[in-house]
Amino acid sequence: MKIFDRPGFPNPARIRIVLAEKKLEHLVQFESVDLIGAAHKQPDFLTKNPSGVLPVLQLDDGTYISECTAITEYLDNLDGTPTLTGRTPKEKAVIHMMQRRAEAEVLDPVGHYFHHATPGLGDSLQAFKSPDWEGRTVWGQREGDRALRGMSYFDEVLRADTYVAGETFSMGDITLFAGLMFADAAGLGVPEMLTALREWRDRVIELPNVKSRSGQTFLTDDLRRLGF
Amino acid sequence: MKIFDRPGFPNPARIRIVLAEKKLEHLVQFESVDLIGAAHKQPDFLTKNPSGVLPVLQLDDGTYISECTAITEYLDNLDGTPTLTGRTPKEKAVIHMMQRRAEAEVLDPVGHYFHHATPGLGDSLQAFKSPDWEGRTVWGQREGDRALRGMSYFDEVLRADTYVAGETFSMGDITLFAGLMFADAAGLGVPEMLTALREWRDRVIELPNVKSRSGQTFLTDDLRRLGF
Repeated sequence: MKIFDRPGFPNPARIRIVLAEKKLEHLVQFESVDLIGAAHKQPDFLTKNPSGVLPVLQLDDGTYISECTAITEYLDNLDGTPTLTGRTPKEKAVIHMMQRRAEAEVLDPVGHYFHHATPGLGDSLQAFKSPDWEGRTVWGQREGDRALRGMSYFDEVLRADTYVAGETFSMGDITLFAGLMFADAAGLGVPEMLTALREWRDRVIELPNVKSRSGQTFLTDDLRRLGF
Repeated sequence: MKIFDRPGFPNPARIRIVLAEKKLEHLVQFESVDLIGAAHKQPDFLTKNPSGVLPVLQLDDGTYISECTAITEYLDNLDGTPTLTGRTPKEKAVIHMMQRRAEAEVLDPVGHYFHHATPGLGDSLQAFKSPDWEGRTVWGQREGDRALRGMSYFDEVLRADTYVAGETFSMGDITLFAGLMFADAAGLGVPEMLTALREWRDRVIELPNVKSRSGQTFLTDDLRRLGF
């Protein structure tokens, strides 16, 4: 298998944590994509994923799989023993619901804030992010507010439960974790008053398969080079 | 089981097609939610789904499941024989990828167009859709353009394949079908030049489990009453 990604970015981090959890890293060859130079918006990459986002998994038969939930479903089911996406119908349902909520209410809005309300990844990429649109900063800021509301919701969830979808670490935790790392990198941060959410993050970052990936997760050389 | 929804709307239609496909309708009690009156944005409904969207499935043990992918995973796996979400790791991956693409590139942008660039569902609901935001119409129109680009992508896919995720009808087709029905209702339409996409839709609407649900799928009394 081959993965096209960029170490240190939020969606790539999701799949790197999944690979560590499933002990599959030795089967994967990684190819780094020049995000800063907007390589993922060029025709060559768009044949792999027409949505123009990372990461993409290439199976040994050549098939390209994009979208983190789809890649996670593949990797988690390869050994016939899913541990991150649920086994029973109810587990699958709760995990998919919470992961989608983490994506829609935290991770994606943080991305919109980063790419529209801040200089983001610099000029090459901004050319693909509606630079001509006057309302872009206002929209980005609204999305930042939305992400903060999403964090409040998860703070409440984590006052009652150990993990995002109950008592077991799952795909939902991975998505939310990536969302918070992105919020830090983007300058939004995670409000101090959200103590349950912050305690959960402190616990998750110490999990062996997260810790081994989290050093490379954020504020990478890429962002530093851009002076973000 | 109980489903909170509103017949005729796109996300409710997705789950009603799933229920027909899985022959589960007789196990479900439906409760209609007053979308026009914005009942789904009020505290009572938000305890069921804090994201404030339909449909929501309530399991017999009281658990609320929202997000169509999560509800579909539940219903499709109940009998141990998934037919809409894939059986092998690769089938699951391709179906989840294509369904997410249909959601992100067609169905969701159509929704943004409908709620922001048109009068949408009227005044009660618009109060929850950023009426104070000057850029809302421009943003809605950009989302409409995005939905049309998404349709072009699926037109290309359907020139090569029978269904959205290959040779078998799946969750990906259901999402795209709901997206196109919504596009028609919202006045965006499906461009005539996208012949493969339109032929696919003509085929899908005739499938017994889609046909039995599609009469109630759109341009319902709700929309007519609003004069949309």
